[in-house]
Amino acid sequence: MKSFEFTTRRVLLGRLERGDSVLEGLTEFCKTNGIQVGHLEALGVVERGGIGYYDHLRRTFREVRFEEGMEIASLTGNVSRKDGVTFLHCHVVLADREGRCFGGHLLEGNVAFACEFAVTDLEGMAPERSLDESTGLALW
Amino acid sequence: MKSFEFTTRRVLLGRLERGDSVLEGLTEFCKTNGIQVGHLEALGVVERGGIGYYDHLRRTFREVRFEEGMEIASLTGNVSRKDGVTFLHCHVVLADREGRCFGGHLLEGNVAFACEFAVTDLEGMAPERSLDESTGLALW
Amino acid sequence: MKSFEFTTRRVLLGRLERGDSVLEGLTEFCKTNGIQVGHLEALGVVERGGIGYYDHLRRTFREVRFEEGMEIASLTGNVSRKDGVTFLHCHVVLADREGRCFGGHLLEGNVAFACEFAVTDLEGMAPERSLDESTGLALW
Repeated sequence: MKSFEFTTRRVLLGRLERGDSVLEGLTEFCKTNGIQVGHLEALGVVERGGIGYYDHLRRTFREVRFEEGMEIASLTGNVSRKDGVTFLHCHVVLADREGRCFGGHLLEGNVAFACEFAVTDLEGMAPERSLDESTGLALW
Repeated sequence: MKSFEFTTRRVLLGRLERGDSVLEGLTEFCKTNGIQVGHLEALGVVERGGIGYYDHLRRTFREVRFEEGMEIASLTGNVSRKDGVTFLHCHVVLADREGRCFGGHLLEGNVAFACEFAVTDLEGMAPERSLDESTGLALW
Repeated sequence: MKSFEFTTRRVLLGRLERGDSVLEGLTEFCKTNGIQVGHLEALGVVERGGIGYYDHLRRTFREVRFEEGMEIASLTGNVSRKDGVTFLHCHVVLADREGRCFGGHLLEGNVAFACEFAVTDLEGMAPERSLDESTGLALW
């Protein structure tokens, strides 16, 4: 088990603009505000969305796309580094008009209609991700 | 993209009483404890529940109600101001006895059987919500 | 309504090892690191999983098990004390390869393939759980 210890520098509340990609928008927000390590939560509505499922036996990602408005019922993630740059790893639960939930890895292509977030900016050295042979994933 | 910066004043863990409305109870908790801006998480069980889906094309809320016990599988939200008073915006994932999840905007009428929460009370000026013409929503 | 007030001591980001039980691994992590009270979030993938539904009318837990890889789409919880030892109460949303979500109480037997977490370690006296007659649950 690997872990890293931090103190809390600050918390930023904010919102994306309509049409922003959720993942790219949040990543850009962190870069612009100098947030190198942290964790975050978000909620909102996307105009269309997508989630990823990691098939751990085949070591491939499977994508599921939604071409309709979905609630962001939950979004949690962390901020660290990969390939020398700020990298966000987030999971999301999207809900359709019946409330039915679809969740997984937050992919690119989730287009915000409205999205509010809380990012906790941590003080300390950002962990770096690298390929972990036992899972095929980029881990700390 | 709009954002606001804060430091963490304190974190409060607590629980609602059986029969409390989740949204009203959490809102009342924040008001009573002078929490004007922050973010929160909760989990628990509701005796009956309800979620909202924002139809962004028609700009109307659609409600889905549950007349049975549901797990609060996830609840995240933020605290700010609207119409001059403390206002909570929360999204929730409810799960039925098969574990099936239904999520969206946390509506009034979710009756707590048991509900535990963690509220992060932030130090700084609370953002005020106002009608955003491009979405029809009350945003910062 | 009962609540407890804390300041934030530190935040720990970390990850479980492949094969770790999620609940036991997170509990062990808190014990090893001296985290007696706090709250946490996690995300990842489990090789197999299980969730609990509390039937509040019969006061029994119902279990649903999954014998396939599932995304941890959301996991939130708190750290306090029960029977004199550190105790975690977590709820989780698991998602299958179609993204379909199943949520509830995090049970033992969720086997991590990969799991990243953020634990907020709070400064202050850890609340102790005891049997609450009105719900049949161990509450603060």
